[in-house]
Amino acid sequence: MNRFARRDSAYLPENFYNIKSDLPEIPAPPLHPGTREPLQPQDLAPLFPQSFIDHETTMERFVPIPRKVLDALSIYRPTPLVYASGLKKRLDTPAHIFYKYEGAGPTGSHKSNTAITQAYLAAEEGVTSLTTETGAGQWGAALSQAGSMFGIDVRVFMVRISYRQKPGRRILMEMFGGKVDESPSPLTDSGRRFYEKDPDHPGSLGIAISEAVELAAKDPDVKYALGSVLDSVMLHQTVIGQEAEAQMRELGMEPDVVVGCVGGGSNFAGLAFPFVRRNLTQRAGIRFIAVEPEVCPTLTDGERRYDHGDSVGLTPLLHMHTLGMDFIPPPIHAGGLRYHGMAPLVSHLTGMGIVQPRAFSQDRIFRDARLFLQAEGILPAPESAHAVAAVVDEAEKAKAENRETVILFNLSGHGFLDINAYAQNGA
Amino acid sequence: MNRFARRDSAYLPENFYNIKSDLPEIPAPPLHPGTREPLQPQDLAPLFPQSFIDHETTMERFVPIPRKVLDALSIYRPTPLVYASGLKKRLDTPAHIFYKYEGAGPTGSHKSNTAITQAYLAAEEGVTSLTTETGAGQWGAALSQAGSMFGIDVRVFMVRISYRQKPGRRILMEMFGGKVDESPSPLTDSGRRFYEKDPDHPGSLGIAISEAVELAAKDPDVKYALGSVLDSVMLHQTVIGQEAEAQMRELGMEPDVVVGCVGGGSNFAGLAFPFVRRNLTQRAGIRFIAVEPEVCPTLTDGERRYDHGDSVGLTPLLHMHTLGMDFIPPPIHAGGLRYHGMAPLVSHLTGMGIVQPRAFSQDRIFRDARLFLQAEGILPAPESAHAVAAVVDEAEKAKAENRETVILFNLSGHGFLDINAYAQNGA
Repeated sequence: MNRFARRDSAYLPENFYNIKSDLPEIPAPPLHPGTREPLQPQDLAPLFPQSFIDHETTMERFVPIPRKVLDALSIYRPTPLVYASGLKKRLDTPAHIFYKYEGAGPTGSHKSNTAITQAYLAAEEGVTSLTTETGAGQWGAALSQAGSMFGIDVRVFMVRISYRQKPGRRILMEMFGGKVDESPSPLTDSGRRFYEKDPDHPGSLGIAISEAVELAAKDPDVKYALGSVLDSVMLHQTVIGQEAEAQMRELGMEPDVVVGCVGGGSNFAGLAFPFVRRNLTQRAGIRFIAVEPEVCPTLTDGERRYDHGDSVGLTPLLHMHTLGMDFIPPPIHAGGLRYHGMAPLVSHLTGMGIVQPRAFSQDRIFRDARLFLQAEGILPAPESAHAVAAVVDEAEKAKAENRETVILFNLSGHGFLDINAYAQNGA
Repeated sequence: MNRFARRDSAYLPENFYNIKSDLPEIPAPPLHPGTREPLQPQDLAPLFPQSFIDHETTMERFVPIPRKVLDALSIYRPTPLVYASGLKKRLDTPAHIFYKYEGAGPTGSHKSNTAITQAYLAAEEGVTSLTTETGAGQWGAALSQAGSMFGIDVRVFMVRISYRQKPGRRILMEMFGGKVDESPSPLTDSGRRFYEKDPDHPGSLGIAISEAVELAAKDPDVKYALGSVLDSVMLHQTVIGQEAEAQMRELGMEPDVVVGCVGGGSNFAGLAFPFVRRNLTQRAGIRFIAVEPEVCPTLTDGERRYDHGDSVGLTPLLHMHTLGMDFIPPPIHAGGLRYHGMAPLVSHLTGMGIVQPRAFSQDRIFRDARLFLQAEGILPAPESAHAVAAVVDEAEKAKAENRETVILFNLSGHGFLDINAYAQNGA
């Protein structure tokens, strides 16, 4: 029996889409942090389940979604594709604006797409304990929920500034049985480097990754899960874009522009990659806009080079846009975007000129989040509000040019658990 | 163009269902608070738009849903009907448990169904200002959102204890442009009666109703909106049960038991009434369980008699179960259930023996909410958690009897903005 009676499951794909299969040239490989030689799949075995490593390294175009993952995804998928008629009216624009509402998921963001997949793959291999980092807590909540679903203990290092700004997400993780510590913590060598100098250190995703990786590397009974950056995570998120393709096709619409916010890149990639495929294989000419905070300008102001994914140097070297592993972003409310690096695949597409980055200030994104709330009735997470800001710009450009531009963006999560941030910023 | 590309709109009905048309005997009429004579429709004209009064008094079986209301409802409707396989597994029960997830709406509860309808009807008659009460803030948020959608100013009297417990819902109302005051307030004669004796008076829905009604009665430019109790509000909420009927039909399932929490009765009625129709017209034999807090036991321990809908005596006398207009419920977290009365239609069906009431303690409902979160991934609002508790009992009974009982319940709202309540109660 279907969990969801009402769902038209025709929109939910049966495979993840692997963009590497369609790239003329694949990104430079990750390097081993010790030898700086190209990483071999077995190098990842201490940290990740084998089937996850297979997802990371496969060159198949379509990777079957396991039946039990499909069942679990169908709790909330397909997610709504909404025609933003309220926003269109407020902006008085000829543009047609669509958004995919990933906040409809159980923990309120797109992160469940890969959390459920990773927890299932781990459980199938007998893993009983996963550790991870989280910024604003969307990923930590999603993994805690998925762990609860598949009988896996989850331990989360939550970036301190978000831990303090967003107690609701911590409570949610704990209600799912997740164990949550502030990062940097005194519990790991990585954490102590920062904690001992400043017990109130605001933390960063890079530091929290170091702590979680260290824990998993030291304990053979613990595996590590990552909520973004990796090729496999982008792969899992392509359910978003594949659904959106099917949903838009039914309306006879094609996007001219696809927009998403980027921290590590996963929600953007999830929506964009199935559409990037059209540019790669059909010369579709769709524009792709990746939106980041002005104060953490990885794509707009970072260098593209090899760097560690964490702040201590425990992870492989990834070829990506980076602000440097030492970069500690200011404590903005979009905790999920406070990352020094970027997914190698998103960096690669940016290098190819397919993805265009944009950056916005916190004041601007809070303003546009409020506009969106009033127009559409949904409170965006501060991360997702970055996408909204770029959409507003595109809609205004369409108005200036009097063009019916079709804009598609990812509303990657709701902001119910960020509501204090809005109150503090005069919303 | 549809706002929602993906929705199978076949589930969303085109009419509200009016249970009065199928009752062998209709409830005793409301009485004028001054004359104690049966209320005439025109007596309501100072408070409500005419088309709303028509909804209140009609005896037609099906009342067409206006096209613009259907468009607005289709932002989030049909809501999911979920097969609770996770809960079934945790309870190890042969019962089949389904829930309608009304938390998928923009402000997180079923209240938008009637808020959007009421705001639309008001706007069509040129109303530019509405006032109302709210307990936990679900209704106030829904009306603020609907007001923002149709260009109506909304002023909300929020019960003080909830105002203090749930700042997130207040912030949400304000972001939609709603103006929110704590009740009892010093702003009305009704509020001052309580405020002057105790400025920290926890308040009640009854007092907040008095304040809002008083404001609307004194100012011809302001109309009043009510989120529960009235026949018309039950009517608007029947979109829930009609969708559930269609969704279950597709699965070839029929409910044996239908469950909902009750404060004023609207989410329960919305789900139940289309199924009650089967008992009335086809002798279907479905059981209906209305669940309330032990400390506000309107149906389980109240009297059925005429009483005012508010605490001061400004509203018509309604024939209903009541704990007395002076009853001030203890400050439980399920603020939406802190009401001394009950919808006359729900009271009537309880009197007929069709609806069976149950009551649970706050400890019990928090326990079952946590169980539900872990099993299904959704955090229920404390109100909705009352329904969960009754479902757990029914599922355990089905296990004891080894029967595949089909249970359908209303998960009327999510608890993201109640998360501090869960934290304070050791969740």
